[in-house]
Amino acid sequence: MEMAKIGPGIAGGNNRQTVTDEDGEGRHLFKRWCDAAGLEMGVDEMGTMFARREGADPSLPPVYVGSHLDTQPTGGKYDGVLGVLGGLEVVRSLNDLGIKTKHPIVVTNWTNEEGARFAPAMMASGVFAGVLDQADVYEHVDKQGKKFGEELERIGWKGTEKVGDRKIHAFFELHIEQGPILEDEGIDIGVVTHGQGLKWLQVTLTGKEAHTGSTPMPKRRNAGLGMARVIELVHEIAMDYQPDAVGAVGHMEVFPNSRNIIAGRTVFTIDIRSPEKEVLDAMDGRIREGIDTICEALDIQYKIEQVGAFDPVTFDAGCVKAIRDAAERLGYSHRNIVSGAGHDACWINRVAPTAMVMCPCVDGLSHNEAEDITKEWASAGADVLFHAVVETAVI
Amino acid sequence: MEMAKIGPGIAGGNNRQTVTDEDGEGRHLFKRWCDAAGLEMGVDEMGTMFARREGADPSLPPVYVGSHLDTQPTGGKYDGVLGVLGGLEVVRSLNDLGIKTKHPIVVTNWTNEEGARFAPAMMASGVFAGVLDQADVYEHVDKQGKKFGEELERIGWKGTEKVGDRKIHAFFELHIEQGPILEDEGIDIGVVTHGQGLKWLQVTLTGKEAHTGSTPMPKRRNAGLGMARVIELVHEIAMDYQPDAVGAVGHMEVFPNSRNIIAGRTVFTIDIRSPEKEVLDAMDGRIREGIDTICEALDIQYKIEQVGAFDPVTFDAGCVKAIRDAAERLGYSHRNIVSGAGHDACWINRVAPTAMVMCPCVDGLSHNEAEDITKEWASAGADVLFHAVVETAVI
Ligand SMILES: NC(=O)NCCC(=O)O
Ligand SMILES: NC(=O)NCCC(=O)O
Repeated sequence: MEMAKIGPGIAGGNNRQTVTDEDGEGRHLFKRWCDAAGLEMGVDEMGTMFARREGADPSLPPVYVGSHLDTQPTGGKYDGVLGVLGGLEVVRSLNDLGIKTKHPIVVTNWTNEEGARFAPAMMASGVFAGVLDQADVYEHVDKQGKKFGEELERIGWKGTEKVGDRKIHAFFELHIEQGPILEDEGIDIGVVTHGQGLKWLQVTLTGKEAHTGSTPMPKRRNAGLGMARVIELVHEIAMDYQPDAVGAVGHMEVFPNSRNIIAGRTVFTIDIRSPEKEVLDAMDGRIREGIDTICEALDIQYKIEQVGAFDPVTFDAGCVKAIRDAAERLGYSHRNIVSGAGHDACWINRVAPTAMVMCPCVDGLSHNEAEDITKEWASAGADVLFHAVVETAVI
Repeated sequence: MEMAKIGPGIAGGNNRQTVTDEDGEGRHLFKRWCDAAGLEMGVDEMGTMFARREGADPSLPPVYVGSHLDTQPTGGKYDGVLGVLGGLEVVRSLNDLGIKTKHPIVVTNWTNEEGARFAPAMMASGVFAGVLDQADVYEHVDKQGKKFGEELERIGWKGTEKVGDRKIHAFFELHIEQGPILEDEGIDIGVVTHGQGLKWLQVTLTGKEAHTGSTPMPKRRNAGLGMARVIELVHEIAMDYQPDAVGAVGHMEVFPNSRNIIAGRTVFTIDIRSPEKEVLDAMDGRIREGIDTICEALDIQYKIEQVGAFDPVTFDAGCVKAIRDAAERLGYSHRNIVSGAGHDACWINRVAPTAMVMCPCVDGLSHNEAEDITKEWASAGADVLFHAVVETAVI
C-alpha cells in the first residue's frame, strides 16, 4: 500500500500524525490519486480535503464519503485510511463503469481525526459541524507547545474555503471495527447504528517536589501517587459499568520525572466512554468526586479540564438502512453494531444524514502497529460502501 | 552565588545535570577558584576533580573534603554545592591564616552524585570505592540514549588519572540535611552516624497497545494500570515499615503515551530505602512478589532490573567523633542523625575513614528548586567541617 510507506512506524504500522510533514506528504499522494480520477479538490481552513466527482445535476447537494489519513504515533495502516481509499474506490469504479450519479460525490479526508497530537479527536469534522470553535482549536498545542493552526499552515494545507459551508446530502464512512465483535462472531459487515459517547478529562495534580530518600512518608505530597490512585479509580468505575462503558488513562506526564524526586506535578488524560449518556455522566461524576477525595488525602491540588467530549450518537435511519440493505443484497453476513471509537461520522451526523460501515480487524486490535485486516473483509466493506453511496447518490 | 548562575533552573534553583555543558562550565569555575587558592588539580577517568593543598609532609595521605557540583533537573542551589564550596573555604581559611597542615588536604568534586541523568547515583565515588565497574557505567545511557562515557569525554572532563588509586587518610562531607529533623528541633549540626541503604528497581511492564474506546475491558492488557498498581504497592509497603523506611516512584515513562491508546509498555523506577538492611530486603521481596501478582492479574509481562543499590552505612567512629567534638567545642547544638539520602561519603566510607556534617534546610526541602538554607546554618556547618578537617590533617 503506497500510503503506508509515508510516515512508516517502527513495527510495520504508521506514524503519520496530523499536520506533520508526513501528513503533508500523505495528502499530496491522495491529491495525485484524486487528480488521476478526474476529481476536483477543495481544501477548507481546517485542512480538510474534498475531492468532487461531478453529478448529473451539479446543483444537488453531494453525497460525501471518506474518513481520515492521519494516524496515531504507533498507528495501524487501516484506521482511517481504509475509509478514504474506500471512498476513492467508489469513484474509480464509477469511472470504470462509466456511471454518472445524479448527486455529485465528494471523497473526504478529515483533518486530525486521531487527536493524538492535538486534542480533541475528530477536530476538523467537529468544527465543520459547528461543535468546536475554529479560532479556539487553532490555538491548541502539542507536547512541544506547537500550535495546531501554525502547524497546519506550515505544512501548506490550510485551505481558503470556509469550514462548514458545504451542503451534504448524506455522509458515509467505512472503518475497521477496532474491536473484536465481528471477527469473534465471524460476521462480514457491521451496520453501525450507534456510536459511544466520550469524555476526555485532562487532570493536573500539583504536589511538592521533594527528595525520595530524606522526606519522611507523612510529609510527602506525592503527585505521582495521586495519579496512580486516579488511574485505579477510573479502572474500577469502568469495571462497574462494563460492558456498557470503558475507561483508561493512556496519556501521562510526570514532572520532573527523576528517580529520586517525588513528583511535584503530573498531567494525564482520562478517557471514558459509554453508549448511554446517563452512564457517561454518572462516571464523570464519580470520577470528579473520587479525585477530590484522593487529593484531599494526599494534600495535593487538582485541576480538571474537559479536552474532548461527544454525546452518544444515533445514526440516520435512512443511511443505516441503505447500508443494511446493501449488505443483505450482496449476501454478506451482517449485524448491527455500536462504534466503540469516535469517528468523523459522529460529528457529521449532527448536520447531515450519516451512517457507517464496519469491517472486522484481526484480534480486534487497533491503535497498534500490528493492526491488520484481510483482503476479503476490506472488499466486502468497500462493496457495501459502494452500493450504499451509489444508491443514495442515485443513478 | 556565582555557581548557581550556571545552569539556572526555572524557579530559582538549578539544572546543572551531570556531564552536560552546564556541568562543564561549573567545573571550569570551580577550577578557577582552586587555581586562585593555589591548589593543584587532578582529574580522574570518571571526571572527579581533586584539588590539592600541599601538606607539611607530602608523603602523608591527604585528608579529603568535598561533595558534588551536579544537580537534579529541578535542583536546589545547596545540595552538593555547599559541601564542595565548604571544602574550598577550609583551604582558603588555612591560606588566610597561613597554616600548613601535616597531611595534604584535597577538595573534591565527585562526578554524577545525583543519578538523575544516568543511574546510579554516586557513580564516580562508587567506581572509586570499587563497587561499580567503570567500563560498565561508561555504557549507561540517559533518556536520549546518550552514553555516560561519551558525554564525559564530550564536555572535556575525562581525566587520565586511574580511578581509586589515591590513598585517603580520611574523608569529610558537609551536606544539607534534605530532611526536616534538624530544623524541626532547632538544632545547628547533624552528626551523621549512619546512612540509609537504598535499592533502585527499574521495572518494565509489557502489555498490549490497544484502542481505549473499542477494546472491551476484559480484553485489555494495560501496562499503565499495572504501573499504577505497583506505585500504590510501593507506597503501602513503605507505610508498613515507616519511619524505618521510605518508598516512591519518581521516574515513569509511558509508551506510546497517547490519550486514546492503552499503554503497551511502561518503564519506571522504584526507590526504596531503610537504615536496616533486613527491612530493605524484606521490602524488596514483598515488592517483587506484589509485582508478580499484579502482572498475573492483568496478563502483562514484567522485567525488574536493579539499577542502583547500597547497603546501610555506619560511618567511621573516629571521624564521627571529630565532628561531634568540633560542634561541642564551638558551642553549636548538635545531635546524631541518619542520612536519608545517599552521598559520596557512603561509598568512600568503604575505603577510608569517613563521616558527614549536616546542617538544616528550610522545611526539610531538597530536590526542589525552592531548597533553601540560612547563612547561620551554612556557617555553623562550615565551621564544624573546618575544625574536623584541620584536626584530622594535624597542624
Ligand atoms: N477511530 C478512531 O480511532 N478515532 C480516534 C478517536 C477515538 O479515540 O475514538
Ligand atoms: N544527596 C542526594 O540527594 N543524593 C542523591 C542520591 C540519592 O537519591 O540519595
